Amino acid sequence: MKISSAKIATIVALCFMWTPLQSHAGIERVEPPHWWVGMQNTSVELLIYGDNIGAYDVQLASSDTARAKISKRTRTDNPNYLFVTLDIATNAAAGVLTLNFTHPDRATLQHHYELKARQFDPQKHQGFSNRDLIYLLTPDRFANGDPRNDSHPNYRDRLNRADPYGRHGGDLQGIIDHLDYLQSLGVTQLWLNPVVENAMQEASYHGYAGTDFYKVDPRYGSNALYQTLAAQARARGIGLIIDLVPNHSGIDHWWLRDMPAADWVNHGGKFVETNHMRETLQDIHAARADQQAFTDGWFVPTMPDLNQRNPLLANYLTQNAIWWIESAQLSGIRVDTWSYSDKDFLRQWVASILTEYPRLTIVGEEWSTDPNILAYWQRGQKNADGYSTQIPSLFDFPLQADLIASLAEQESWNSGLVKLYRSLSRDRVYADASALTIFADNHDMSRVHTQLGHDPALTRMALTLVATLRGIPQIFYGTEILMANPGTDSHGVIRTDFPGGWSGDKVNAFTGKGLSTEARAMQAYVRQLFSWRKTATAIHTGALRHYAPKDGVYTFFRFNNAERWMIVVNKNATAKMLDTNPLREDLAGYKSATEVFSQRTTPLREGLSLAAKSVTIFRIQ
Amino acid sequence: MKISSAKIATIVALCFMWTPLQSHAGIERVEPPHWWVGMQNTSVELLIYGDNIGAYDVQLASSDTARAKISKRTRTDNPNYLFVTLDIATNAAAGVLTLNFTHPDRATLQHHYELKARQFDPQKHQGFSNRDLIYLLTPDRFANGDPRNDSHPNYRDRLNRADPYGRHGGDLQGIIDHLDYLQSLGVTQLWLNPVVENAMQEASYHGYAGTDFYKVDPRYGSNALYQTLAAQARARGIGLIIDLVPNHSGIDHWWLRDMPAADWVNHGGKFVETNHMRETLQDIHAARADQQAFTDGWFVPTMPDLNQRNPLLANYLTQNAIWWIESAQLSGIRVDTWSYSDKDFLRQWVASILTEYPRLTIVGEEWSTDPNILAYWQRGQKNADGYSTQIPSLFDFPLQADLIASLAEQESWNSGLVKLYRSLSRDRVYADASALTIFADNHDMSRVHTQLGHDPALTRMALTLVATLRGIPQIFYGTEILMANPGTDSHGVIRTDFPGGWSGDKVNAFTGKGLSTEARAMQAYVRQLFSWRKTATAIHTGALRHYAPKDGVYTFFRFNNAERWMIVVNKNATAKMLDTNPLREDLAGYKSATEVFSQRTTPLREGLSLAAKSVTIFRIQ
Repeated sequence: MKISSAKIATIVALCFMWTPLQSHAGIERVEPPHWWVGMQNTSVELLIYGDNIGAYDVQLASSDTARAKISKRTRTDNPNYLFVTLDIATNAAAGVLTLNFTHPDRATLQHHYELKARQFDPQKHQGFSNRDLIYLLTPDRFANGDPRNDSHPNYRDRLNRADPYGRHGGDLQGIIDHLDYLQSLGVTQLWLNPVVENAMQEASYHGYAGTDFYKVDPRYGSNALYQTLAAQARARGIGLIIDLVPNHSGIDHWWLRDMPAADWVNHGGKFVETNHMRETLQDIHAARADQQAFTDGWFVPTMPDLNQRNPLLANYLTQNAIWWIESAQLSGIRVDTWSYSDKDFLRQWVASILTEYPRLTIVGEEWSTDPNILAYWQRGQKNADGYSTQIPSLFDFPLQADLIASLAEQESWNSGLVKLYRSLSRDRVYADASALTIFADNHDMSRVHTQLGHDPALTRMALTLVATLRGIPQIFYGTEILMANPGTDSHGVIRTDFPGGWSGDKVNAFTGKGLSTEARAMQAYVRQLFSWRKTATAIHTGALRHYAPKDGVYTFFRFNNAERWMIVVNKNATAKMLDTNPLREDLAGYKSATEVFSQRTTPLREGLSLAAKSVTIFRIQ
Repeated sequence: MKISSAKIATIVALCFMWTPLQSHAGIERVEPPHWWVGMQNTSVELLIYGDNIGAYDVQLASSDTARAKISKRTRTDNPNYLFVTLDIATNAAAGVLTLNFTHPDRATLQHHYELKARQFDPQKHQGFSNRDLIYLLTPDRFANGDPRNDSHPNYRDRLNRADPYGRHGGDLQGIIDHLDYLQSLGVTQLWLNPVVENAMQEASYHGYAGTDFYKVDPRYGSNALYQTLAAQARARGIGLIIDLVPNHSGIDHWWLRDMPAADWVNHGGKFVETNHMRETLQDIHAARADQQAFTDGWFVPTMPDLNQRNPLLANYLTQNAIWWIESAQLSGIRVDTWSYSDKDFLRQWVASILTEYPRLTIVGEEWSTDPNILAYWQRGQKNADGYSTQIPSLFDFPLQADLIASLAEQESWNSGLVKLYRSLSRDRVYADASALTIFADNHDMSRVHTQLGHDPALTRMALTLVATLRGIPQIFYGTEILMANPGTDSHGVIRTDFPGGWSGDKVNAFTGKGLSTEARAMQAYVRQLFSWRKTATAIHTGALRHYAPKDGVYTFFRFNNAERWMIVVNKNATAKMLDTNPLREDLAGYKSATEVFSQRTTPLREGLSLAAKSVTIFRIQ
């Protein structure tokens, strides 16, 4: 029996659950590659790409019409695209639909489109929260679990560990191999820089120039391996956060070769730089021209800015987000270059995702040190212009800047710790400051240890503050072993290889082999800190009360009905006795303070001694 | 016929309308010295000070009981004070009440208390607004109209023009003598640093250490002369704004010698410095101890911090404000050290004043560059904590700082004009940004000409921006002739003598004699600028739209249905053609632009040339 090439393709595809069911050669792509029955939104809009496909009519096989129907066929100014909206019956069983494409002058084409059964209950799907510790890592730079995929014949950017901006071979298998390590650090959420295909000429390692939004880059592994990572992490109580970039793609994205519509990319596909004036979106005096220059401008010539005002593209991006969450049971989304996307799109995108997963957490990257700029976007904010999104969290860049300044600067009435105090005093600006994601550094700035002049005592303070202030803590891979970028702020160096992730590494941070005493101590401290934090409920959701810093000492409390923690930073180069007199509001009625790590208990009446350049967490009892 | 000493006193008093009616020697002070019939609040609480006066009973003469009654007698822990609340009948005629003080063991005392008729309609009493130009001057430093009062035998701080912090002899008569000059500049509101008695040992010239809240310092003139100034200014269309300091008095205030109550002054009358942490009042995480340290702390040892939580003092301060407004038909209040007073008091104080004068303008000095800190206080702001005051205006310190930075800094993506653009982009934070009082400098900071490196072109830009941006413009005396404080930021030098104000001055800015060419040009420009501004209604209340600065050029429009102005700053050292392409939103449909001062008209299609280092106001037609 002769087996048709389509059938072979189908068989092969079924062997790799993540690979879309193949169709006739005339159909090059169908995206999303599959979908699910039982979604809240019962429609899915398929992008179908193929030679002159827009000239075809499309019908479902008659046997499928009880499960779904085609409610809309949308054609664009590019005849090689057809957008087909499937309405899926609420009670439809999972299975494969057959789409028949007919043309007056050409042979009929067929595509088998799978509707899968959902694997988990989206209502129970819990996003990340204040209980968690998010660990951000750059997949190319953490661990090389599979040297066979370091380079790939289809991709021009090959392994080159000598180049800070080259590919270094890290991959998903490397992460899977070291989940135990992450667990031991107290990590409960893993945020990876994007792992979708970046088929770029160079500097593809960072991941933000996606060239196929439905495909894990083969140099990291595969879609299936991504699912394995998610499952194995989940088994250890670690959620997976996907980094999505609705604002732009890489210039080598496949659709750039044959754009789905003339308005798919802003400025007609030509590079015009954004003005980076995010203020314009919130400014009652702004000119529309400036708002448009912000939204429509590109970041860099290699990253075309997507036009989310095109409803087909908007829908594409929404479905893409849902597809990854559903596929890998993700716990959240980190949204790159948040406000650079179209403002109305963002509202709708978030709303659509949260309709499917009401408890999912989404955190936006809105890089501004002005709390008002951030506050504008957060769920629950009442803006005078009536605009609101439902995004639960934003990265707290204002706090990050003030945290560093508070530790790096000399103390004065107007510098040092007072900056941290002032930063937190602005929390009333936010609908919910405790839902912000807080951090001391990330992949886009000098490492905290470098920002703090390579002083482990200061870095320890920074990490402890991130662990104990309001918000959801996030740390950057390697901070626990004092990774740094002395003398440069090259992103390639900031995102340096984690020692022990490559065979032959002289230093192995996973085992501790070869680590400096300081690095080893910090790693141990991070383990202690975040292990303690897991059960400290007042740190997660308790109130915060802080006291104006004085003489280089800053004190704050986290408390609920069950527990009360006192955190004290002493920036002085000498030991100090804590002045507990101003702290009456928090200490009245309490007898003793126990240092959580040394377990040393001191009666409050004896006074509390603070070590030089220290941060101490006390349990007040 | 023998004339009693009391009668003589009464006759003498009637000769000087501002001097309170005298009473028996046993009563040293009655404040307010008089009051009015027909006020909204029909009660007035008299502070009565005299030897053991608290041990007396007090009654109105029986002939007075139809006009008023005593509703409350309040005694404190100091027997030398008695507080008497008079309830005045709604329809009471003006006239003198007789208060009889009786004591079981002492002679009866009598005090004649005048209730005056009101001179003007408080409902029509218009405060200052966006139509105005406020001119701030330091009375000791503007003009010496009456050399006889330069020193006064009762006051230790004598004339010493050689000392920047000494008294220089300026006075109210000097201001009266030069109202024509102020009018010619376009001034429509006059804000004087406080003119109440400052019987301080030294540095009394600044006025902020009041020692008698009901008396103009004799070295400036008298209460009567203050009233004359107000009347003569009003005749020229110039309103008078009083500078009030409810937060503190001078250490030599008469009541400090025998405090009305033990809690009249915070910290029991001993100096404890404020922490200056105004943030604490708005901080959802703040400790009460820090809030109290802010509110109760003193500025300096010579200025005791008043405890406005004492209801007698609170009422005293409220009546004091109303007394001055009513006495001199003032157009507004400038409130010194706004938030340092008790927060609840401030709410009540403003509300009570606005109950009497609903259209009065009050502007608070809240020196913070954080718009949120200011916004918290302004009328119409919805604060999450439920707090609100009705204060209409605050000094726009955030804009001031950004205005200077925008002109003084080199241009870059993150410095220079973009700071002004960003500053205005935060206007949504305010309930009403257009009601803020805007300025380039004031008496507490380096003069704008010094802040801008003594570059007349930059100073001209700053003044033009103050004249054309949203808000109520305020300038500081002498800015119009480029007064500066090179090489120092000594307050005594900043508040230097206005040339021409003293006989024998070699330079006379009133006549122009001896002014440098640059100073003369700036003075002429200020006259032109604010003369034009008077009729430019879109500048007062029109919309503002601005365009992101580019290449050292910043453009904004002020417009309403009747007119459209375009203001363009060109910081470049070379002439530039204005790129009108991004300005379509404001220029579409218009044909020409006329420079308002040169009256040169250019068709828009020919392009607009901007002179090097210039600011140009165009009328768009």
